[in-house]
Amino acid sequence: MTADIDKENEKEDKQPGLKELTKAVQKRLTVLQHRIKEAKIPVIIVFEGWGASGKGAIIGSLISELDPRGFKVYTTGGPSADELRFPLIRRFWIKIPEYGRLSIFDRSWYRDVSMSAVEDGISIAEIDRRFDDILNIERQLSDDGYVLLKFFLRISKKEQRKRFEKLESNPATSWRVTRDDWRHHRMYPQYKRAFETMIQRTDRDYAPWIRINAENRKKVCYNVFTCVESALEDALRREKAAYSPVIRTDDSIKPLPIKRLADYNPAVRFENDEYKPALKKAQKRLFELHNVLYRRRIPLIIVYEGWDAAGKGGNIKRLTDGLDPRGYEVIPVAAPSPPELYRHYLWRFWNSLPKSGHIAIYDRSWYGRVMVERIEKFCSEEQWKRAFDEINHFELSLSEWGAVIIKFWLHIDRDEQLVRFNERMNNEEKRWKITDEDWRNREKWDLYEEAVDDMLIHTHTENAPWVVIESNDKKHARVKVLNTVIKRIEHVLKDRGIKSALL
Amino acid sequence: MTADIDKENEKEDKQPGLKELTKAVQKRLTVLQHRIKEAKIPVIIVFEGWGASGKGAIIGSLISELDPRGFKVYTTGGPSADELRFPLIRRFWIKIPEYGRLSIFDRSWYRDVSMSAVEDGISIAEIDRRFDDILNIERQLSDDGYVLLKFFLRISKKEQRKRFEKLESNPATSWRVTRDDWRHHRMYPQYKRAFETMIQRTDRDYAPWIRINAENRKKVCYNVFTCVESALEDALRREKAAYSPVIRTDDSIKPLPIKRLADYNPAVRFENDEYKPALKKAQKRLFELHNVLYRRRIPLIIVYEGWDAAGKGGNIKRLTDGLDPRGYEVIPVAAPSPPELYRHYLWRFWNSLPKSGHIAIYDRSWYGRVMVERIEKFCSEEQWKRAFDEINHFELSLSEWGAVIIKFWLHIDRDEQLVRFNERMNNEEKRWKITDEDWRNREKWDLYEEAVDDMLIHTHTENAPWVVIESNDKKHARVKVLNTVIKRIEHVLKDRGIKSALL
Repeated sequence: MTADIDKENEKEDKQPGLKELTKAVQKRLTVLQHRIKEAKIPVIIVFEGWGASGKGAIIGSLISELDPRGFKVYTTGGPSADELRFPLIRRFWIKIPEYGRLSIFDRSWYRDVSMSAVEDGISIAEIDRRFDDILNIERQLSDDGYVLLKFFLRISKKEQRKRFEKLESNPATSWRVTRDDWRHHRMYPQYKRAFETMIQRTDRDYAPWIRINAENRKKVCYNVFTCVESALEDALRREKAAYSPVIRTDDSIKPLPIKRLADYNPAVRFENDEYKPALKKAQKRLFELHNVLYRRRIPLIIVYEGWDAAGKGGNIKRLTDGLDPRGYEVIPVAAPSPPELYRHYLWRFWNSLPKSGHIAIYDRSWYGRVMVERIEKFCSEEQWKRAFDEINHFELSLSEWGAVIIKFWLHIDRDEQLVRFNERMNNEEKRWKITDEDWRNREKWDLYEEAVDDMLIHTHTENAPWVVIESNDKKHARVKVLNTVIKRIEHVLKDRGIKSALL
Repeated sequence: MTADIDKENEKEDKQPGLKELTKAVQKRLTVLQHRIKEAKIPVIIVFEGWGASGKGAIIGSLISELDPRGFKVYTTGGPSADELRFPLIRRFWIKIPEYGRLSIFDRSWYRDVSMSAVEDGISIAEIDRRFDDILNIERQLSDDGYVLLKFFLRISKKEQRKRFEKLESNPATSWRVTRDDWRHHRMYPQYKRAFETMIQRTDRDYAPWIRINAENRKKVCYNVFTCVESALEDALRREKAAYSPVIRTDDSIKPLPIKRLADYNPAVRFENDEYKPALKKAQKRLFELHNVLYRRRIPLIIVYEGWDAAGKGGNIKRLTDGLDPRGYEVIPVAAPSPPELYRHYLWRFWNSLPKSGHIAIYDRSWYGRVMVERIEKFCSEEQWKRAFDEINHFELSLSEWGAVIIKFWLHIDRDEQLVRFNERMNNEEKRWKITDEDWRNREKWDLYEEAVDDMLIHTHTENAPWVVIESNDKKHARVKVLNTVIKRIEHVLKDRGIKSALL
């Protein structure tokens, strides 16, 4: 009698028609893929779950009908030695899809946290911090129009054992079950707790977790596909309703007070006669400190912003003159090129971070978002207003990774700019440096000044302070930048309790 | 008396005015940088030489006056774990500059060869093979307009010891001298022989070695800079003289004989009733073989070319249906995007290679050079004629790295294409698949047929054979592709003496 009931259940489980239903939703996904491409909606689908829960097979089935030009599958193993020299989240950030495309992750940014929580016994506070970091990034992506879907594939400990044993019994697949897999199997209860915390802490409307029972292989694909389908349909509907992202202020990082641009006197001069020796001395000191940073694997990020013709190029040259060219890079930031233009504006900066121990000098930077993009209306008011908080979080991530950050505004006054523009016009060799755009920007001085003030007020933080450099006198500007960088490094090193024969 | 003579020599060594001369050539290089940018000439400068010969300082001085938007410095250490999963040369290929820009290498593709020659005691034949590989790549780049300059910085063993000791005596730099440096120092004679062989074997007019005496730190920069200057001036002069690259035939790889397209009957049908079982069986076998490849870290490269509407998409789908999506990638090749367009046409394919153990399926490929680029005149006749040999060398590199390569031409006849085009036009869901361009290409059938025949004749090699797939009948085409891939893998595995329980 009991046996009979079981049999009936089995039959029901097979659900005649499920195969056809699955095929049908696959076909509809093909059409949806084209529609999200047209609507330029980017989609990120994350698969987390137990070992042998069938992530590979589900992803294989999901993509089998999709246009390969529209998606990429990323498999996440442990970070490589190279990846470990950057913030951990970078390896995912640089894989976000272009607008209109899909990135599918087999394990994701959640992998490192949940592994660490169980294996490395990191503190609850640290885990919390990492989850906040993840949530912040997911929110930034969602604000930018990215659709995020996170699947967690559940199987019981018993089912996992059964699957491992089956894989092991087949010579073509036995190598797939590793010693680590069995170890994790034995730690099923610990991992279960970690996964539960993860889901609880990071389930948000903008990036929901979807728990999927993965024990029934036939149903699981159908369930996943229909979830993807309805998420894409929702996104398309929202798109039509002219979805406009919200300005968030609730959990912004609080910036420190700072003076307005008008309160600085750009005409401050270098009073000491001994410019060359002062320069040489500072360059030598920076060289020494760079060696300390290099050995400690501490990255240094220097941002240059400033008025046109304020002397950024020459200033950067003096900063780098004494440095080993193998340890620094000057990153000139121009208008974004196509692959950059088609993604979140911070993507290209995640792509250009310095390795640990290296120096990155940004000749213009992510602040373009709240300067030129604001003034030329390349982004909406909501977007640039939201950018202050996004940038603060970005810089906080870098700082928590260990980076020393310093940001300069090279300040000259209107008259000095005019003198320099004319000088360039009259000099054959320098004429290429000046364009019509420079003259147009000059007309917008007041607009820029307002933008600079907003930028200083909203993004001057303890981790990433702004320093306004009076630059009418180039000598003053060059020596001040060098000495500010030196002081900043010394301050951070001392703060971290790093003692060195060189300090 | 002797002491006096020495003093005089020292004075002469200092060459009054050398500093000013160096500054002057630096300034001229700034101007040249702008001129090569305008002329779109790409430049690669390689620095090889003894440890402590001053490569870093020379590069630092070379770039100090250059526009940072126009160059990149790359430092070459040992290959990373990730880099080791690709052909060794790839890590350099992907760093070639855009047209009009500079890549500067501190150590280069010569590093691995010269190290291996001394440290690993590889055979002379193998070293010769690697040098040939390098020469071939340098020639390809030169043919494409790249200017190549290779500096070798000489210092004596005695001078090297002095410099190491000086670095060690300074706490800021002592960590830079490693145990390996001293070991290499003791092996100075062996390295010297290896370097001499390297220079002798790879000094060519299109990529000359320039030996620089680096003992005198003051002179060395001046000497390097003037060499760079005259090389850039030469290149600009050549540019003006409408430099047209030569067709080379001397050392081409000899392709195997193959039939012309007209000799195939695209209407061959799948005769067996049992299509589904045949497909399933082949997919299962491929799954098993992929596991063998994965464990042996053997990459598999499959190229799909064929007539429009020949069924590439559906064919690829059947090929991948049984595979683990984490182990393969379908790479759709469309018209090159800007960063690709601004470099050697093979660059983007070096960038998209599969990791060892992975499968890359190219939906169209580098053969675009000798097909669409030839027919639409996106490249010159010299360029596409030269491409056959370049592609053979490219595929030889991949094969020597260990890749299994197979190339398919999906063949249908003109009538079948028309049927399929009309079918697509009449089907709401498939209409996006057909464009005006497809109709235009159809008009050029004869031109394409000629190009396909040339392609087959010139690039059907033992390492990378072509297989024409009769595709009027999709069933036949799908099963034949699967079985051909299977046979190819089995053949290569047997050839390499790999026995497996699965073979």
